[in-house]
Formats: sequence, C-alpha cells, structure tokens
Amino acid sequence: MKPSGYKDKNEVKTTYKIKELLTKIDGQYEGQFPLEHTIRGVSSIANNRLDRITFAENQKHIKEAEKKAKGVVLVDENCRENDIKNLIKVKNLRLSYAQIAQLFNPVPYYNPGVDQTAVLKKNVSIAQNVSINSGSYIGENTIIEKDVVIAPGVKIGRNVRIGSNTVIHPNVVIERDSIIGKDVIIEASTVIGSEGYGYVFSEGKHHHIPQLGNVIIEDEVEIGAVVTIDRATQTSTIIKRGTKIDNQVQIGHNVQIGSNCLLVAHVAIGGSSILGDNVILAGRVAVFDHVKIGDNVKVGAASIVTSDIPEDSFYLGNPAQERINELKARALKNKLVNYRKEIFDLKKEK
Amino acid sequence: MKPSGYKDKNEVKTTYKIKELLTKIDGQYEGQFPLEHTIRGVSSIANNRLDRITFAENQKHIKEAEKKAKGVVLVDENCRENDIKNLIKVKNLRLSYAQIAQLFNPVPYYNPGVDQTAVLKKNVSIAQNVSINSGSYIGENTIIEKDVVIAPGVKIGRNVRIGSNTVIHPNVVIERDSIIGKDVIIEASTVIGSEGYGYVFSEGKHHHIPQLGNVIIEDEVEIGAVVTIDRATQTSTIIKRGTKIDNQVQIGHNVQIGSNCLLVAHVAIGGSSILGDNVILAGRVAVFDHVKIGDNVKVGAASIVTSDIPEDSFYLGNPAQERINELKARALKNKLVNYRKEIFDLKKEK
Amino acid sequence: MKPSGYKDKNEVKTTYKIKELLTKIDGQYEGQFPLEHTIRGVSSIANNRLDRITFAENQKHIKEAEKKAKGVVLVDENCRENDIKNLIKVKNLRLSYAQIAQLFNPVPYYNPGVDQTAVLKKNVSIAQNVSINSGSYIGENTIIEKDVVIAPGVKIGRNVRIGSNTVIHPNVVIERDSIIGKDVIIEASTVIGSEGYGYVFSEGKHHHIPQLGNVIIEDEVEIGAVVTIDRATQTSTIIKRGTKIDNQVQIGHNVQIGSNCLLVAHVAIGGSSILGDNVILAGRVAVFDHVKIGDNVKVGAASIVTSDIPEDSFYLGNPAQERINELKARALKNKLVNYRKEIFDLKKEK
Repeated sequence: MKPSGYKDKNEVKTTYKIKELLTKIDGQYEGQFPLEHTIRGVSSIANNRLDRITFAENQKHIKEAEKKAKGVVLVDENCRENDIKNLIKVKNLRLSYAQIAQLFNPVPYYNPGVDQTAVLKKNVSIAQNVSINSGSYIGENTIIEKDVVIAPGVKIGRNVRIGSNTVIHPNVVIERDSIIGKDVIIEASTVIGSEGYGYVFSEGKHHHIPQLGNVIIEDEVEIGAVVTIDRATQTSTIIKRGTKIDNQVQIGHNVQIGSNCLLVAHVAIGGSSILGDNVILAGRVAVFDHVKIGDNVKVGAASIVTSDIPEDSFYLGNPAQERINELKARALKNKLVNYRKEIFDLKKEK
Repeated sequence: MKPSGYKDKNEVKTTYKIKELLTKIDGQYEGQFPLEHTIRGVSSIANNRLDRITFAENQKHIKEAEKKAKGVVLVDENCRENDIKNLIKVKNLRLSYAQIAQLFNPVPYYNPGVDQTAVLKKNVSIAQNVSINSGSYIGENTIIEKDVVIAPGVKIGRNVRIGSNTVIHPNVVIERDSIIGKDVIIEASTVIGSEGYGYVFSEGKHHHIPQLGNVIIEDEVEIGAVVTIDRATQTSTIIKRGTKIDNQVQIGHNVQIGSNCLLVAHVAIGGSSILGDNVILAGRVAVFDHVKIGDNVKVGAASIVTSDIPEDSFYLGNPAQERINELKARALKNKLVNYRKEIFDLKKEK
Repeated sequence: MKPSGYKDKNEVKTTYKIKELLTKIDGQYEGQFPLEHTIRGVSSIANNRLDRITFAENQKHIKEAEKKAKGVVLVDENCRENDIKNLIKVKNLRLSYAQIAQLFNPVPYYNPGVDQTAVLKKNVSIAQNVSINSGSYIGENTIIEKDVVIAPGVKIGRNVRIGSNTVIHPNVVIERDSIIGKDVIIEASTVIGSEGYGYVFSEGKHHHIPQLGNVIIEDEVEIGAVVTIDRATQTSTIIKRGTKIDNQVQIGHNVQIGSNCLLVAHVAIGGSSILGDNVILAGRVAVFDHVKIGDNVKVGAASIVTSDIPEDSFYLGNPAQERINELKARALKNKLVNYRKEIFDLKKEK
C-alpha cells in the first residue's frame, strides 16, 4: 500500500512500454504502435506526443484526440467507433488514468536518512527508510514509522506518532500529541493540532480554556495546503479513514469527520460538530458548532449549516435547507419586483 | 502574569493533591477521596479515571458523571443534589476548570537559550530566559524581552519588539517593525505585518503603494493559526489588549480592533475599518473597508458588514442588518411560493 | 525594472532633498523650505514632521494638512487654494506618492550570497546578486535568476525557475516544476504548486488523480500572504502578467487568471475556471469550477459566481447576477413582511 497518487517508492523505472502499462490497468490496447512502444509521461490531449499518454472522456475530447493525439489515448470501453490511432479501452476511465499517472509521479522529498540540519529532540524513534529533510524539527518522544517522508521545514511537536508511508510537505506544523495514520498526505504549510478556540469571560477578560486533547488523522486521509485542524479540549478531534480535505479548510476542536468525506476549499467546521461517512461539503461551506450531519449528506457551495442534517440529504443555502426548497426560493427572489407591482395593482382596483 | 491557559514556567510540579488544587480555585470539596489524593491531569467525563479531574456543567453531564466519573468532578455551587462521588463545588465553573487545566498545560517549546541552528542578525537584543528554538531567524535590531518562547522555524524581521512572556508557535512570520505585547500567544504559521493590499492604476498597470507602517499587537492578545494581519500604509494596524483571534482570520491594513474582541475563524476585515471594544464577530463574517463597528456589537456567522454598526447592536445577514429584521426576512423567504399563488388567485378572482 | 513598491536595490541613499524628489515625479514645488531641505521618510498627515512627506487627497485631508503638516504635502495639481505651507502639486497624486514612498522602502531580506544554513540540492543554478537566506531549501535542477531575494525558511522544490528581481518572503513554499516570472513578489507562507484536488471514487474509496502539471506565475504578479495556488492536472495553472492577489486566496488546479486582475482577500476560484484580463473580484468572492469570466468584469464582495459572466459586467449576489438586479431584490427583501400583510388584507376583503 502507498499514499494514493504516488509511484511506489521501490519502483525505479521512469519509462514504460505499452505492454507494461497494460499490466497496471484492466484495459484492451488497439493501435498502430507495437506493444514495445515506450511511454515517458502523461499529457493533455492538445499537448499529446508520441511518447505520452492521455485520456478522452467525452465526445468533445474524442474529436480533439482524433486530430491531435500522437501517442496513446485512454478511452471508455463503451466508447463509439473513432479515428484515434492508438487507444486503450478501459472499464473505469478516470481510475485507469490515475493508476497510470501515478507511475510518473515519484514521491516528493524522498531522500532516506536524516539531514544534518534537522533537529531531533530526546527519545525520538525513527523507523527504517524514513526521509527527514533539512530544517525539520521533531519533538521529544515522537515516533516516525517506516517509509515516512518529512519534507524540509516540517515542525513536529512532542509525543506525536506518524504512521508508515505518510508524506508531509514543506513547512507543515504538527503540534504535540497528534496521531497521524498510514498512507496520509499533508500538503504544505498545513497546521495540525493548533490550540482550540475556547474562552470563558470573567472579570472583564476572556480566559483561555486549555485544550489538552489531541488530533487523530486516520489512514489514507489526504489534507491540502494551509489547512488548520484544532486539537480537542479533553478528547480528540478526529478525521476518519479516507477523507480528503482541500486547501484552506478550518476544522474546530472536538470535531469528528467520518470516513471518505470530501471537504472542498475554504470549508469551516465549528467546534464539536460531527459529520457522518461519505459527506460532501462543497467549497466555502460553513458548519456551526455542535451540529450533526448524517451519512451521505451533500451540502452545496457556500452554504451555512446552522442545525442538524439527516442522512442522505442534499442541502443548500444560508441557513442551509433542503436543496429543492432553496432553489424554489431563489427562483422567486427576483420576482419580488413583480409581486410588489401586482399587489399594488390589486389594492388600487379596490 | 503569564499567557492565559499555560502553566507558570517556574512551576515544576506535574501532579497535584486535591488540597493543592483547592488553593488554585475558589471551591468546596465533598467526596470520598482524602485531600491527599493525587490528580495527574484532566479528562472528559466519559474517560474520567481515579487520577483525573473533569467538569459537569448541565444535567446531562451530571447524569453522565454519576455513572462514569471515577476521579473528581467540578460542578457549579448551585448544582442540585447528585450521586457524584467526589466533587468540588465552584462559583465559576468554566473559569475554575480553565485554572486547573492550565496546571497540566506546560508552555510548549520552552527551552531557554539559543539553538545553534537559529540565525540572529546584527544588534539583536535577547533578554533573560528566552527560548529561541531551531531554524528560527531574528532580524537586525529586533528586541526579545524576557521569558519569550520562539518555537522552531519562526522568522522575525528587523526592528521588531516581542514583549515578555509571549509564546510564538512554529513557522510564524513576523515582518519588520511589528510590535508585539506581553503575554501574547501566536499559533503556528500565522503572518503578522505582511504588505497591505493597496494599488493605484496608471498607464495600464496596477502600481503598488508601499506600506511603510507596522502592526501593533497589544498585551494578552491571542492569535490562532494561519492568520494574516497586514501592516499599515503609514501608521499602524492595531489589535488592542485581550482580543482573541481564531484561525484563518484576515485583517487588512490600517485596521483597528478594540479590546477584548472575539474574531472567530475565517473572519475578514477590510482595510481601515475600526472595531470598538468587546465586539464579537462569529465565524466567516466579513467587514468591508472603512467601516466603523461600535463597542459591544455582535455579528452573526457568515454576515457581510457593508456599513457602520452602532454600539450594542446585534447584526446578521448580507448585507448585515439588525438581527431581528434579518430573521423576519429569512422566515418569509420560503413563503414566496405561497405569495405567488395567493396573488395569482386574487388576480384570477377579478 | 524592479518589483513595484520597492526601492531600487542599487540605490544606497536613504534621505532625499526636495529637489531630488522632484526628479522622481512629475510635480511642481511651492513652499517655504529651500529645495535643499531633507526628507527622511513618509508619514500620515497627523504624524507629519519637518523631514517627512505625506499626501492630501480630499478636502478633509487638506484641512487636516493645513493644521498639522510640518513637512511637505503632495496634492493634486487642481487642488484649490489652501494654507498648506510646503506642497508639491502633481498630476497623479496616488502614483506620485507611491513613487516617493518606494524610495524609503528597501527590498527586505536583501543579502546577496548563500547563507550557510541554506540547503541547495544537486544542479541548482544561482545567478549573480541572488540573496538566499537562512533555512531555505532549493531542490534539484532549480534555476534562480539574478537579483532574486529568497527570504529565510523558503522551500523551493525541484525543476523550478524563479525570474530575475523576484522577492519571496519567509516560509513560502514553491512546489516542483513551478515557473515564476520576473519582478514578482510573494508574501509570507504562501504555497505555490500544491497538489490539485481531484479524485475518482471506486470500490468504496476516493482515489487521487495525480496532478502532473505545474503553476506559471507571469512577470509583475504580486501575491499576498497565505495564498494557495494548485498545480494543474496535466497542463498549467496560469496567473498572467501584472495580476495582484491579496491574502488567503485559493486558486484551484487548471485555473487561468488574465492580466492585471485584482483578487481581494479570501477569494476562491474553483478548478479549471478562466478569468479574462482586468477582472476585479472583491473580498470573499467564490467562483465555481469550469466557469468563464470575461474581460473587465467586476464582482461584488462575498458573491458566489456559479456560471459564466460576459465581459464588462458588474455582478453581485449568490448566485451572482447583474448587480442592478441583485440590488433590486435586496431592497425588497425586508418588504416581505408588508407583502404578507397586504395579501392577507386583500384576501380578507373578499
């Protein structure tokens, strides 16, 4: 197992023959090139070259590929007759593309060993084949499992655990007591385990309530750049297995996010809210604190979730409501001018 | 005095007897444990153990504590009769909890001295008992007062002053000329004193107006992770005493924020706006530039403040208006479908 | 040429006589000071001193300057008769102020040479007069052109190119394959080239689609603090010449932003969207993915752009619509209470 999207660290090949690619995906090759033909990378259709592979997923793409594709094109197995010269028919087009693309996507900052400018405090445990790049800092009692990549400038507090095969990009900060699973990816400058925002007002001042819990990131979670995830007051802020978080998302203390959720850019989740599994929050959605969102819920972009949402719903608006109701209300918003006039006319007729 | 929420740096104890805790808060102990019983930390009610202290602030919590609390429970002094075995009755429950929790919350990255990988430029002044951790950078003429903690990777420009007892988390950037008060906390990856956003368009280009002012952060201000505060064009962007700022907040150039304000996550304040004291902006609020908000104003989540707000108001909406009016309008939004039908019926009856 | 707003690196002067300032701008001096009078910096009007220059752009400012300005005041050439003692009349007031202010704004972190704590990987190319400050990291095959400033803690991946005269503030991360133009400014903790957010769901999991493209930032672009710009899936995410981006902006993969655009704080642009030239997105605007926005479009603060916008339009609202329509609808929003009552009365009269 490895973080999704990266080439296996142990694989040294950088070019692949068509016949080798066919061992990686479930596909059928039809074309003029021999199976020994060499592929050196992926490309867009427009920039496709003899040694590049691309994909075409709709009629517009296929027409473009007929004209411009010089190398190999992945298409759906049900794709209609076409004039693409070299193609591979596959069952799941995007998945197959992803599987091939990752062959050309080496793990960044992979550089086993500890750079001499890195600082390791007392009692740090480093397993085999770990890359600890320049300028990184690892606090007391922290455990780094095998095959982890710590990019330059990453700061990790004390009592942290980083699971095997996880990749942490430059300048990420992971504060004390955080537990990060296996096969996790964290993009640059994200902060995990910052102090939760909790105050009590007394005698003219806000007094901070110490946040003594932690953050738990489960296996296969992927976190974008400049995300903040606060640690819990007493327990754990939890992001469950396989959830994918986009850039600039904010997650408050004590929050629980279920498995396989998608949180798109600029989402914010208030303290102690709980999301079920497979929840999709589109970009810029905000969720109030102490809200429960059921499994399989979708929330449309820029919505504000102020109260609980039952499972399997699709919500939209501010405050968020069932999408169909929000769309009805929106459709009528610009009719207000007419209503005013019609009411006025009706009254005049009296 | 020390930053709110952290243990006193000079205190070495890590465990406390019940009788010692009672010297820290104003409370009355009733229970089965002797006063010599040792407490080693805080916990949630569900995870409470013999040597842990927790708090119960409502009936649901008290019922849970009756069943699950094995250690000591803080409750309000007016709390009704209950079956909790060991409790401390206190006047201000959350404050007392905060005071006890901070005994178990040592200052992070406290490590007096200058790490050998830190870089100090000419004429830097470092007072006693300052911790300058690895990979940090301190520019020319900068003054660091006593007991300050500079975590790993912090970059501080020239001519900056950091007041005593302030704690700066990893990878924070403080640009030139900034003045940071005493007992301030700045969470990871925040940027103080970035260039303000000011342009003049001429001959087909936007020309930057240099921002030659600074940022002033007063005493006891606490700033979350990944916050940006721009420096002023000619004067100072000011955050006054005791204000608490959550993660991912953006504050434009020339802004003045009063004392004891709360700015929740993803708030943005446009250039040159002025907030009074005790203002609370809930999450995701945006304030236009050149707006004045009076003392004690509250603004509900995700509101957009487009013009001045008088003191002691509660505003909501986009554009923000008095909350009661916004709530009335929101309540009727979904009735538009009915209105359309009713108007249609009335017209038909003619 | 140099990045807008900074003093020329080769100029050593820190004070200027009035007659020297007059060689930098197109202005007419009228005053009591001799032309030999020395100016040492800029100030606000209120803090203006004998050796400081300021500007007054409206009647309120001019009245203030009459009372408080002790040094020199820039005013518009058509400014009415006034009692300011020393003034310079100019054609373009803000531009002239900017041109003078930059004389007092030295390039930050300018320190030619490579700091000994910086780490350069194999085959890095560094041109003359480049400043590489402490704790920075430069990946394999990266090219740094002349006069570039790399502040402390900056991390640059492999195969990157940084154009001449560009200034990169502390703790910025630039991921692999990015191409940064000349005279670019990037404020602190920004991330360029993070992995785009693209997944395919299959067999109960989200699989990442590797993002093998890059980011291209053209000449004279300026980027605020804590901005994220994702790299493209196969091609390039492009920010064209002269565009200025404020703090905490998020730009998705495959996006194209035209020339001379302004993106104000907390803007977010969804994947594959295309903005024309001279587009202005006010603060907190979000743009959906795959949207086209024409040249010269303005979008009001906090609007959500869900579909294409034709050139030369001014849009507002959620979903964004022509501003005039949105303003009409907003004006009537609070009238809903009246409508309800009027309809009720009309029905009763039947």
